[in-house]
Amino acid sequence: MKFVKNYRCTLCGREYSKDEKIYTCPECGEKGILDVEYDYEGLKKILTKSYFEHNRDYTMWRYKDVMSIREEDIDKTLKVGWTPLYRSNNLEEKIGIKELYIKDEGLNPTASLKDRASAVAVIKALENNADTIACSSTGNAASSLAGNAARLGLSTVIFVPERAPQGKLAQLLIYGAKVISVKGDYRETFNLSKEAIDHWGWYNRNAAINPHLVEGKKTVAIEIAEQLGWQVPDWVAVSVGDGCTIGGVYRGFYDLLNIGLINRIPKILGVQAKGCCPFYTAYTENEPLKPTDENTIADSISVGIPRNPVKAMRAVEDSKGTWITVSDEAILEAMKTLGSSEGIFGEPAGVAGLAGVFKAVKEGIITKDETVSVIITGNGLKDVKNALKAAGDKIECKPDIEQLKRYLT
Amino acid sequence: MKFVKNYRCTLCGREYSKDEKIYTCPECGEKGILDVEYDYEGLKKILTKSYFEHNRDYTMWRYKDVMSIREEDIDKTLKVGWTPLYRSNNLEEKIGIKELYIKDEGLNPTASLKDRASAVAVIKALENNADTIACSSTGNAASSLAGNAARLGLSTVIFVPERAPQGKLAQLLIYGAKVISVKGDYRETFNLSKEAIDHWGWYNRNAAINPHLVEGKKTVAIEIAEQLGWQVPDWVAVSVGDGCTIGGVYRGFYDLLNIGLINRIPKILGVQAKGCCPFYTAYTENEPLKPTDENTIADSISVGIPRNPVKAMRAVEDSKGTWITVSDEAILEAMKTLGSSEGIFGEPAGVAGLAGVFKAVKEGIITKDETVSVIITGNGLKDVKNALKAAGDKIECKPDIEQLKRYLT
Repeated sequence: MKFVKNYRCTLCGREYSKDEKIYTCPECGEKGILDVEYDYEGLKKILTKSYFEHNRDYTMWRYKDVMSIREEDIDKTLKVGWTPLYRSNNLEEKIGIKELYIKDEGLNPTASLKDRASAVAVIKALENNADTIACSSTGNAASSLAGNAARLGLSTVIFVPERAPQGKLAQLLIYGAKVISVKGDYRETFNLSKEAIDHWGWYNRNAAINPHLVEGKKTVAIEIAEQLGWQVPDWVAVSVGDGCTIGGVYRGFYDLLNIGLINRIPKILGVQAKGCCPFYTAYTENEPLKPTDENTIADSISVGIPRNPVKAMRAVEDSKGTWITVSDEAILEAMKTLGSSEGIFGEPAGVAGLAGVFKAVKEGIITKDETVSVIITGNGLKDVKNALKAAGDKIECKPDIEQLKRYLT
Repeated sequence: MKFVKNYRCTLCGREYSKDEKIYTCPECGEKGILDVEYDYEGLKKILTKSYFEHNRDYTMWRYKDVMSIREEDIDKTLKVGWTPLYRSNNLEEKIGIKELYIKDEGLNPTASLKDRASAVAVIKALENNADTIACSSTGNAASSLAGNAARLGLSTVIFVPERAPQGKLAQLLIYGAKVISVKGDYRETFNLSKEAIDHWGWYNRNAAINPHLVEGKKTVAIEIAEQLGWQVPDWVAVSVGDGCTIGGVYRGFYDLLNIGLINRIPKILGVQAKGCCPFYTAYTENEPLKPTDENTIADSISVGIPRNPVKAMRAVEDSKGTWITVSDEAILEAMKTLGSSEGIFGEPAGVAGLAGVFKAVKEGIITKDETVSVIITGNGLKDVKNALKAAGDKIECKPDIEQLKRYLT
């Protein structure tokens, strides 16, 4: 918290004191998402390569100095972050690029990248003396909030759209959340949650509204940089729904650049599902964002009205990256390819980023001599139904050795 | 590998050279499970507390010197081990013991403790120039083998009993394994796999048969000790099926004691499901192990004929621990309690150890002034059906704020 200077509205640019209890810009309303601004000169003095070499905290809290949280309770949280960044053993050769690194965010405590935001949310709730946190979510934000809150003894109220996969619902219930299943799509879910949060005064974990959550998510980018010895790749690919995660990814690299730990920001590849791609459409048609259908198996990125457009568009634009879409078939194919080539099992939205890399390589957007990191945002166990679809039915029932011999030879 | 002295049969005590290509004792046959013996005097000189303080490899390979593997390919494996050991925030007070530590093995790459054995299996397969590994498994050993093998470009043939949960099957298929679903129970599955392995000469990952796998599993105990600053708890609780994991847990502490890093072995609480408890029965009735029914929701420990009886019985006896059984209802209850109190989601067999702790405290086996570590062996996402059963149906469909107000107030 010490190095936080102030908040600044991403729309109007107004500055607010870090002591103000606001989620969004009071002037611009709900769309006036805030940036947290830091004293980079101060950070430069302590966040050196040598500092990190000697830091033994292998969780996201190793980056606490460049986050907007009070440090008091961080030891009590789930162990979020410092997930593996694998150099590809088999895939990079298969697709023909120089280097491919795979960040397995499915190994976070509740099995998705969202833990990075939820860990911050529970700490902020304690700071604000709240005993209940609420959010609307297509699944992972909710289950991660419920798990992280349970660990700290906080209550949660979760608004989910009806279509959430069973694995994610099971998590919510086991973590003891109050689950409100909303008849409708993500936007109706979001609106009801907002109304309820205003009414009861719960702490708000909706990632777009709450500026601190992107500050949690950005740690995934900082980790990638550190795990690569502060040499960032040419590209970082990530799937995009609401826009908060890609906003966080950009923000992490932006902070590191300003602190002087890296010397450029990687190009960011924003990957959307073909059946729900408001960012891609706005980008290619050079038009403002328009609401779209939510028509993809990748539930975590099935967001027709993204709540964090400014940060997401900025991430791709300022990093000189691009947007791309992938079909549901390509997503299922990527799931199988990643599992069988590297032993990593991602959920549909989790592997969409990789499907985007495959397509970008084919189309020459990513060239053969470039290096790529892809973020697998969630664990495949969260959505077994779609995994079985991806795998096809390949189970053989063979009761004796003779039949087996005929089958295997 | 450098510190491996020889193999010794757990039944007849015969010694074999470490260069022999054997799985079990040639004299005693399949029941002659081998122990790997180490040069503890040599290990004492290098495995000091200071060595570990400076070791930056936060995977199970940080203990490679006390394992029976060649080190050549270990950098290419999935990142197994160094899972969180949480001090309980809320549960220890609830059950009224001095200290409770929870080891979340569900955060391994394929979401179970079995990764520790499978990572060794794939390294041994490479050592033996095998390109295919096979095993029979109730689920986790199989899915972890498939994932770890995929990462190294090895093929897998997996024999599963029909009842394996969907999550585990999905993993197998996504990791590209050849899956043979056997009509019958675990013993029939095991027998068919053995026949096929003999016939085709695949590398054998059946944990009881293969002595190196317990050497992988023991790292969970070594980690617990290191994460507690080499001060072991009074009790370590773990669920038991085949007997290999509990054998590994004992072995880890045994090694540390002989190396001089700890000064006693914790009492080991072996927890079995009431519907499948051959060890418990043999122990309480002081009789040899007899085949039993396999009648529990905890599929990973539903083993009517355990294949590693000697190591399992020795673990409890030599540690002065005890055996206990828990009902399926108690398992489901423990799943809910762990999730809602600590934000950790375990599968049925994964939380059976905790259910055992609850019962042991109630019965005065574990006393109020004792410290306990419990191993949560697998992730709850692997078995969503039972998780939903544990949670009950608590999803509320409330389409508008007025209905919500009535519901929440």
